[in-house]
Amino acid sequence: MIERGLLIVLSGPSGVGKGTVRKAIFSKDDVDFEYSISMTTRKPREGEVDGVDYFFKSKEEFKSLIEKDKFIEWAEYVGNYYGTPVDYVEQCLSQGKDVFLEIEVQGALQVKNKFPEGVFIFLAPPSLSELKKRITTRGTETADLINNRMTVAKEEIEMMDAYDYVVENDEVDLACSRIQSIVVAEHCKRTRIREKYQRMLEVE
Amino acid sequence: MIERGLLIVLSGPSGVGKGTVRKAIFSKDDVDFEYSISMTTRKPREGEVDGVDYFFKSKEEFKSLIEKDKFIEWAEYVGNYYGTPVDYVEQCLSQGKDVFLEIEVQGALQVKNKFPEGVFIFLAPPSLSELKKRITTRGTETADLINNRMTVAKEEIEMMDAYDYVVENDEVDLACSRIQSIVVAEHCKRTRIREKYQRMLEVE
Repeated sequence: MIERGLLIVLSGPSGVGKGTVRKAIFSKDDVDFEYSISMTTRKPREGEVDGVDYFFKSKEEFKSLIEKDKFIEWAEYVGNYYGTPVDYVEQCLSQGKDVFLEIEVQGALQVKNKFPEGVFIFLAPPSLSELKKRITTRGTETADLINNRMTVAKEEIEMMDAYDYVVENDEVDLACSRIQSIVVAEHCKRTRIREKYQRMLEVE
Repeated sequence: MIERGLLIVLSGPSGVGKGTVRKAIFSKDDVDFEYSISMTTRKPREGEVDGVDYFFKSKEEFKSLIEKDKFIEWAEYVGNYYGTPVDYVEQCLSQGKDVFLEIEVQGALQVKNKFPEGVFIFLAPPSLSELKKRITTRGTETADLINNRMTVAKEEIEMMDAYDYVVENDEVDLACSRIQSIVVAEHCKRTRIREKYQRMLEVE
């Protein structure tokens, strides 16, 4: 009997560094999560690659997939669609593999409705002013958009209560290591292991 | 404001290797738990040092401390008393330090009554036959005592439900690393961190 894999959901306010942390995690040798690549209608930023960072799709294509119920979550965010295709996630979990999602807050809440057993990790800025600095120095946004993002971020921080864990992104390496520890700990949860031991006792 | 430390309780069946795992954890450079040394009336085994492995006391001394309410838990186990002195634990927690207890199952259940917020880790044998082998090869027990311990161990494994985590002691280094991960994850729990962020939002 294969034990079902863990669904690990990394989310957090815009600009907090979710993508950077996700990339750093998957560059490590000792990580064996499967990464579920999101789908989006926004334009690729410089350096982003289709099929690696996101599947970049037109709005028409995206809407068609929504109609076919092919997302475990999708959201409209700052005028674009983002979503997580369902097939790959279900396949991995049923094969006992841990699946890692890096998604926006709106989407994470939808995933929680469908997969309440998932491990929900909120990536948090060390402070809101630090968040502002990060968004500003990304250099691709207008002042209005930045202010808008700050307001959104404050609301999102208040959404922390929907999550199991909060990981501060003070240093990328530390954040990665905390996330890896959370996954190890979740695999050690008594609720997951009790059944296996119950079977062992019955065999003896 | 100092955040209160975590109380980490490592317990598990007799012979599973609690002491070995505890020693291995505290030999690591990157561990900063405080170790709460237990008190016992049993005789030191070969190599055990008073004030390092245990505080070894007479039954009269131990009973006097029970009367003065100086234990957060104590138990009689295979004809001897074991207990955790209260003062050191309380002092560390209030200073924000994590405290590590390695205790018998009976004691762990008492600690859980007094410190339900503690992190309760059950160290489990890879299998009961492996447990039997370990007890047999320790070479200091009679056959009756071994059989008695096996019965006790089966009961103790059924006590797993009182714990938050189950760590298999398949390899000492792996068990240590899982325990360290559990402590990191517990520090990231949303319930612990939410208040800090709430204060941050109010300041902004």
